[in-house]
Amino acid sequence: MSIKVVSLGEIMMRLSTPDFKRFVQADSFDVTYGGGEANVAAALCNYGLQGTFVSKVPENAIGQAAINQLRRYGVQTQYIARGGDRLGIYFLETGASMRASQVIYDRADAAIAQADIADFDFDQIFDGASWFHTTGITPALSDKAAALTEFALKAAKAKGITTSIDLNYRKKLWSKEKAREVMTRLCQYVDVCIGNEEDADTTLGFKAKDSDVTKGEINLEGFKDVFHQMKREIWI
Amino acid sequence: MSIKVVSLGEIMMRLSTPDFKRFVQADSFDVTYGGGEANVAAALCNYGLQGTFVSKVPENAIGQAAINQLRRYGVQTQYIARGGDRLGIYFLETGASMRASQVIYDRADAAIAQADIADFDFDQIFDGASWFHTTGITPALSDKAAALTEFALKAAKAKGITTSIDLNYRKKLWSKEKAREVMTRLCQYVDVCIGNEEDADTTLGFKAKDSDVTKGEINLEGFKDVFHQMKREIWI
Amino acid sequence: MSIKVVSLGEIMMRLSTPDFKRFVQADSFDVTYGGGEANVAAALCNYGLQGTFVSKVPENAIGQAAINQLRRYGVQTQYIARGGDRLGIYFLETGASMRASQVIYDRADAAIAQADIADFDFDQIFDGASWFHTTGITPALSDKAAALTEFALKAAKAKGITTSIDLNYRKKLWSKEKAREVMTRLCQYVDVCIGNEEDADTTLGFKAKDSDVTKGEINLEGFKDVFHQMKREIWI
Amino acid sequence: MSIKVVSLGEIMMRLSTPDFKRFVQADSFDVTYGGGEANVAAALCNYGLQGTFVSKVPENAIGQAAINQLRRYGVQTQYIARGGDRLGIYFLETGASMRASQVIYDRADAAIAQADIADFDFDQIFDGASWFHTTGITPALSDKAAALTEFALKAAKAKGITTSIDLNYRKKLWSKEKAREVMTRLCQYVDVCIGNEEDADTTLGFKAKDSDVTKGEINLEGFKDVFHQMKREIWI
Amino acid sequence: MSIKVVSLGEIMMRLSTPDFKRFVQADSFDVTYGGGEANVAAALCNYGLQGTFVSKVPENAIGQAAINQLRRYGVQTQYIARGGDRLGIYFLETGASMRASQVIYDRADAAIAQADIADFDFDQIFDGASWFHTTGITPALSDKAAALTEFALKAAKAKGITTSIDLNYRKKLWSKEKAREVMTRLCQYVDVCIGNEEDADTTLGFKAKDSDVTKGEINLEGFKDVFHQMKREIWI
Amino acid sequence: MSIKVVSLGEIMMRLSTPDFKRFVQADSFDVTYGGGEANVAAALCNYGLQGTFVSKVPENAIGQAAINQLRRYGVQTQYIARGGDRLGIYFLETGASMRASQVIYDRADAAIAQADIADFDFDQIFDGASWFHTTGITPALSDKAAALTEFALKAAKAKGITTSIDLNYRKKLWSKEKAREVMTRLCQYVDVCIGNEEDADTTLGFKAKDSDVTKGEINLEGFKDVFHQMKREIWI
Repeated sequence: MSIKVVSLGEIMMRLSTPDFKRFVQADSFDVTYGGGEANVAAALCNYGLQGTFVSKVPENAIGQAAINQLRRYGVQTQYIARGGDRLGIYFLETGASMRASQVIYDRADAAIAQADIADFDFDQIFDGASWFHTTGITPALSDKAAALTEFALKAAKAKGITTSIDLNYRKKLWSKEKAREVMTRLCQYVDVCIGNEEDADTTLGFKAKDSDVTKGEINLEGFKDVFHQMKREIWI
Repeated sequence: MSIKVVSLGEIMMRLSTPDFKRFVQADSFDVTYGGGEANVAAALCNYGLQGTFVSKVPENAIGQAAINQLRRYGVQTQYIARGGDRLGIYFLETGASMRASQVIYDRADAAIAQADIADFDFDQIFDGASWFHTTGITPALSDKAAALTEFALKAAKAKGITTSIDLNYRKKLWSKEKAREVMTRLCQYVDVCIGNEEDADTTLGFKAKDSDVTKGEINLEGFKDVFHQMKREIWI
Repeated sequence: MSIKVVSLGEIMMRLSTPDFKRFVQADSFDVTYGGGEANVAAALCNYGLQGTFVSKVPENAIGQAAINQLRRYGVQTQYIARGGDRLGIYFLETGASMRASQVIYDRADAAIAQADIADFDFDQIFDGASWFHTTGITPALSDKAAALTEFALKAAKAKGITTSIDLNYRKKLWSKEKAREVMTRLCQYVDVCIGNEEDADTTLGFKAKDSDVTKGEINLEGFKDVFHQMKREIWI
Repeated sequence: MSIKVVSLGEIMMRLSTPDFKRFVQADSFDVTYGGGEANVAAALCNYGLQGTFVSKVPENAIGQAAINQLRRYGVQTQYIARGGDRLGIYFLETGASMRASQVIYDRADAAIAQADIADFDFDQIFDGASWFHTTGITPALSDKAAALTEFALKAAKAKGITTSIDLNYRKKLWSKEKAREVMTRLCQYVDVCIGNEEDADTTLGFKAKDSDVTKGEINLEGFKDVFHQMKREIWI
Repeated sequence: MSIKVVSLGEIMMRLSTPDFKRFVQADSFDVTYGGGEANVAAALCNYGLQGTFVSKVPENAIGQAAINQLRRYGVQTQYIARGGDRLGIYFLETGASMRASQVIYDRADAAIAQADIADFDFDQIFDGASWFHTTGITPALSDKAAALTEFALKAAKAKGITTSIDLNYRKKLWSKEKAREVMTRLCQYVDVCIGNEEDADTTLGFKAKDSDVTKGEINLEGFKDVFHQMKREIWI
Repeated sequence: MSIKVVSLGEIMMRLSTPDFKRFVQADSFDVTYGGGEANVAAALCNYGLQGTFVSKVPENAIGQAAINQLRRYGVQTQYIARGGDRLGIYFLETGASMRASQVIYDRADAAIAQADIADFDFDQIFDGASWFHTTGITPALSDKAAALTEFALKAAKAKGITTSIDLNYRKKLWSKEKAREVMTRLCQYVDVCIGNEEDADTTLGFKAKDSDVTKGEINLEGFKDVFHQMKREIWI
């Protein structure tokens, strides 16, 4: 049997203009469904692992289309809850030469942001799993999503499963203060923490000495310093 | 100068699957922007009148795309307010032979549902206009949208402009009771009321004698009866 | 748990001309992957059952694409063997008004026609299954495929699983004589036999009295007569 | 109110091969409508100005399509005259790596080349305008188009409107001698003259000392010298 | 060797909107190249005859694309002269349900309308040919094209080749009077004349007794009467 | 008359994914037909020569589509034999940035590999020809194809026609030993031999002194040395 990895998060509909068209020129959008955590599950399936994705999508054909897109790559989707109002959407206009790409989010009130802990049976979900992965985007979606993420991390740890989180600070979703409060709490249950200096600051409040990201100055000693701070204060 | 007609309502993004594909099969969606009131403005422009559409769309490229789509047909768009959270969306899967078409709405929290009366200068909007048209969909979107519709109808009447409304009951948006309360009030300011027997019942509470729409029994006397009731009770 | 249904057969690549183009006009082909038995598995998944498809496809990206197409609809594909030379192909030119559709087969040497019984672990495949379905196309592909079909039917019966076969005579694949010899043998292990009068004749050698399909004369008594013959001679 | 800028010129249909195909390979062409002066009007609308485009297009659906394309970007199109034989066309084959792009013009007898001064009411067109822009392409189309351009420039100057011209020499449309005769006359009414050394020579007959464009030798002193000549001889 | 049939006429570029779009909605056009006489040549090639098409197309890639389209179906194109200003174009908007199809011609000054008799070596062209076909569209294009058609018909007859003409009256190209004058002269050299009652009247001036096409009244005796008139007056 | 060049070889159907899609993502394939020898014939036609392609393709619409594709570029196709089982296919997934292109061949049992010498009348084919070209791919397809290639080369030489071969070693089609045996025999009848050092080794067994292709070390003296060996041993 292949190694089972579970990921939890939002899956969104991506609508992108074809042929480098601008939004105002497009008569059609290319459609795919994805998200940080869902993409990890699909990528692991491509490498032969058993990726299992946990989320909530609406009980309609759009929600089903998101699920079927994952199935196409072999992702296990049986634990995706159904319900809620809508699937989050983002619009992508791919840039060309001097013109930058543009992203417009329309993700408020997505089903996963409204999900209850009771929508999922983590005992069954984590059965046989070796790894659990999530990101700092999921808890930023709503208080309920933050509670769900914490519950899942605790449940995974209780089963002795390795846990990982990608810090991924999203300033459109929450404030630094809120992020620090929630993420510091979540990181207690995390074995592998992925991020860069900027995320360490914005989501956890650890500043590397003698580094200034906005000036492009980065030093390795600063990273080590942040790691020591994180080790000292989070994983006491 | 051509005759100026003003319409007020929601403009939505329509995402439809190409080539009779199902939602779960589609890798692209065709995109257009429209709605009952916006389509009236565009159609009148095709006939040589000066259609002017009033609405509110977000201050981003998606809102601009909706505006540009109307401009393409010559619709005057300078009074469309900009702001709010999002543009309403609906998904359309065109049916084929035995399979029915399917529509999925994702229209909550659209900019027009959040619009304030202060977003519009109706004195300027109605300047030189001969006709004002709206529908029973707009007041169903939110209480603010109902207030906006009533304000616009009153302003039009005060200027001596002919007003029309298409009753269009939408059961997913409001209850019969709410519809009847709001629409009865709005119809006071309406010169031309468009609808069928069913709308007369659901939105205004007038039942035709001896008719039963669900049984497919319709009689002309019933229609006349409804007209008399409407005349007696609304336009007293 | 949903009901598990297993089907066995060939999955082919279908290349069809878009927009009613002729083969000589087409600059692109639409691609899908399917076949009688695979379609049954996908359709059952759409109805909520657990469709499991068994076949053999080449160990390359074209074989993987066929598998991923099935996964998209939720079909269980873990028992599809990998190897062999190629995936069978058929070309489809959809007709328009007076012009008939045209199909060109290029299916010789497909992986499933070369498959060995040892490629499959039917004990595991049928574990928990309620139904096994196949067609008269599979045994027509090659002697090995006929032996595989017989082995699978026997294994299913041994496990107490309900079995079904769709007779589907394919005259390009084998002669009536060969078909009758093989299909009569296979039908011993079949609980539900699907077909029409013509199939009953071509693949099993049962002629309905007083019916002549080529003249369009069909009578119900003839069908009953065929059923009695089948019952008498096959399921003795 | 936003600043009103008027431009005058030809709008052509552009037919370009998709996906870097060659003309002999293409089964479809992408269609857009544009031209130097029309593009200026559309670009200014994108920046929030009120671009107004003046031209003549045929009284058919192709002429309407050109107009609607401009409207899409908010360009004012009410002064575009309707009539004449046809819309000019150009075919574009976009190059790829070593292969150069190829343009084929089919612009003879375009409606704008046949337009009369009487087709336009410049008093109304320039009402409230701040700027008038045209190019050296328009007068090159025909004697009538040259007379129209001169009339428009004079009318703009008489209203105190700033005028600009882009010299744009087109050798397929007229000779250097003809260009110099017409453009020198037009430049009398021009406030802002846009061009490079080569245009200054081909369309106005001013040669920069010590420069040889064909050898790639350009010196700033040469430009200044051209400017002084232009100032001395045109804007006396 | 297969039977050689020569046809002479115009080949045009057809630009049609895809997916039943209107001209004002289309962002692309489907491109094909054809015409009454060219289509006959291509159709005969499909039936195994040696279709040879004679025309003149511009010496550019658009002209080459028209030639290559014919070659695709096996039409002999070596006698197509190269030169002239442009290839004729027509735009096609396919109708849908209640909306009729719309055709816009842009065919003035096409290369074939400007062709000289000296552009063609009919001795070589007709070498080995059994049949020569043309239509009433070709002589309607220009006086030069009418002279060319007459020359070709005479040359064919001189070689003992069977000749045919499809009357095809095109009222946008010439008057009834002009058509009658030219077509009566051409028909002297024609063995097989194809047309209906209306063409017989408009292009040859023969009216069927007791028939009125505009009223939908057609009688067989009228046709016979026209045949007798034609036989009496043309093929004397 | 233009110079006639004959080429002999396989023409395959190429199915490539559009827009840099992967095989598992593609819902359509772009279709073209080509091959080393066919492409030479088409390219020569583009340069004004009379390219004539000789091959065998199936007697169905797919074979016809391959022929029509060649005709489009003016290639003479009348000597292409019809029959055999199938047209060879190859699938192409164009790479993007870090991802390499991928080719999957499905060419076994192609019509040309099954062709008989009797399918072709080389006396007629070479009539009036100046040059005959083939490649080392054709004889690698099958023993019959090798015999056909040898027969054609001999026939060309007997007519005094210049012959050329592109060595093109294909390791998936045959072993070095087999290649050397066949190609050494064929090269006796070849005037112009095209290839690189590697081909000289793999298909003819000539090793350049002091060169090691796999190390990227190539010296001109080595090439000269190979030429001398070839001259000494093949064209004795």
